[in-house]
Amino acid sequence: MQFIKDFTGLKAFVKASATINKVRVVAVCPHDDHTREAIEAAIKEGLAEFTLVGIPDKMGSLPSLAAHIIEEADTDHAAYLAVEEVRQGRADVMMKGLINTDNLLRAVLNKEHGLLPAGKVLTHITAAKVPGRHKLVFFSDAAVIPFPKPEQRTAQVAYLAQVCRAFGIEQPRIALIHCTEKISPKFPVTLDYQMLKEQCAQGLFGNAIVDGPMDAKTAVDIHSAQVKGINSPIGGDADALLMPDIEAGNVFYKALTCFAHADIAGMLMGASCPVVLPSRGDSTDSKLCSLAMACATAIALKQ
Amino acid sequence: MQFIKDFTGLKAFVKASATINKVRVVAVCPHDDHTREAIEAAIKEGLAEFTLVGIPDKMGSLPSLAAHIIEEADTDHAAYLAVEEVRQGRADVMMKGLINTDNLLRAVLNKEHGLLPAGKVLTHITAAKVPGRHKLVFFSDAAVIPFPKPEQRTAQVAYLAQVCRAFGIEQPRIALIHCTEKISPKFPVTLDYQMLKEQCAQGLFGNAIVDGPMDAKTAVDIHSAQVKGINSPIGGDADALLMPDIEAGNVFYKALTCFAHADIAGMLMGASCPVVLPSRGDSTDSKLCSLAMACATAIALKQ
Repeated sequence: MQFIKDFTGLKAFVKASATINKVRVVAVCPHDDHTREAIEAAIKEGLAEFTLVGIPDKMGSLPSLAAHIIEEADTDHAAYLAVEEVRQGRADVMMKGLINTDNLLRAVLNKEHGLLPAGKVLTHITAAKVPGRHKLVFFSDAAVIPFPKPEQRTAQVAYLAQVCRAFGIEQPRIALIHCTEKISPKFPVTLDYQMLKEQCAQGLFGNAIVDGPMDAKTAVDIHSAQVKGINSPIGGDADALLMPDIEAGNVFYKALTCFAHADIAGMLMGASCPVVLPSRGDSTDSKLCSLAMACATAIALKQ
Repeated sequence: MQFIKDFTGLKAFVKASATINKVRVVAVCPHDDHTREAIEAAIKEGLAEFTLVGIPDKMGSLPSLAAHIIEEADTDHAAYLAVEEVRQGRADVMMKGLINTDNLLRAVLNKEHGLLPAGKVLTHITAAKVPGRHKLVFFSDAAVIPFPKPEQRTAQVAYLAQVCRAFGIEQPRIALIHCTEKISPKFPVTLDYQMLKEQCAQGLFGNAIVDGPMDAKTAVDIHSAQVKGINSPIGGDADALLMPDIEAGNVFYKALTCFAHADIAGMLMGASCPVVLPSRGDSTDSKLCSLAMACATAIALKQ
């Protein structure tokens, strides 16, 4: 497949794929303006078809555009019904509307009736398009896992590789971010990074380049990597950045949006389908991009 | 004094102050092109006068421009002699040239002959000018203290307030950065933040607003603070951000430089004078801005 280097390309890819096999999204309580607008845009652009779970009267003009409606006034039960759609193979992506994130995740994480297979790790992946940059940058985790354990980092790298491949990057370059290049017990994260590199060498992440520790500039700036004399297969051209913890991930996310005017998409990986959890502050287009990101990933997961 | 909102204003302020009382900078081993160029520019712009410690033959045309030259071939001893200039009251700012940072810091941190008064904390402060933003943003610490202890955070906030005041900000707004707004034992940093707010209320930081935890977007984006319904005296218009740890600080720094095309200045606070430690990768202008930042701070410290 072709390499998707921005959100315009992403939406075009998902739309083109839809002519063969349309992704099915189940939306939980699409009762607020922003969610409704994003869904309406997604339907009109032909990105996906929707099953809406919630109160039809609160969905504006959406019911006439949706493939299915499941009426349910109780939000917690709406989440449960949406999870069931995925479990029964009737939905490929889940999207949050006007329901508390914790309540939605409770349904997703339910051990008996949820979407998280035993041993799987739920983590957040962001895709950012910074004006002037030649491609997207993916990173994890700005939102869910506070201080990842080694096995959680392994899962994060695996998901980053998966999502990069869903975007047509055959050999994803994943940089392990830390404030220096040294591996040292003073910074336990660097020992985890050593482990991740070994796992990559063993083929755990498929055809991928995983290297670090390195700082974010060395990861994405070809010139900087050269000046510092750092000889890494990442070559200052990383596709994805693994963040040391949620504080670094969150600050990176906010710096990109507030200061670098990046367009952003994000979703959860690890459940049996990608889950889109837009924030109140996200623009309609950001929600649409998140939906498209989840759809592209769902398409890759189906293959 | 007037409010300095960018690096042009900063250099103009330092230059204007120099007509009354020129800041004296001692430079250790200015033997590389970048350091020489920055010093030459600083002298030509009339920002400061220089004492150069090192090998005159390696200083290009600088010796003819400098106020004093101290010949010393051994870099470690050059650092020691530069420290002595500060201790004897003959220099207000120290600048690193072609000497290993660790070796310079060893001289600065020496318990008997160094520049760090007992109990003082050495920490790094960055000033960034992001294109389009109405003022500088200061933050700490992207480079020196890995995981600050509570008393180190107190020092960091105090230095941020000092530096903001040196830039003419009468009542600095200092945001305590964390991925959410919740104070919780799950994130010990938030308990430190509670303490810092109490210390601010007790007047420890002078006339300043210290609030958090909050994420970086809420700190610097008026609109975002309103959308989230966050009622903070920071009001989405922070002057300075306290970073939870070096990982977040470093990632923030790199995001601003690589993705937001920010101009950057930085220095160490806590020693008896500001210390400028440019990196190899810094441009001449970035080094000049760091020098000007240290000079403005030195001017404020003298008053």
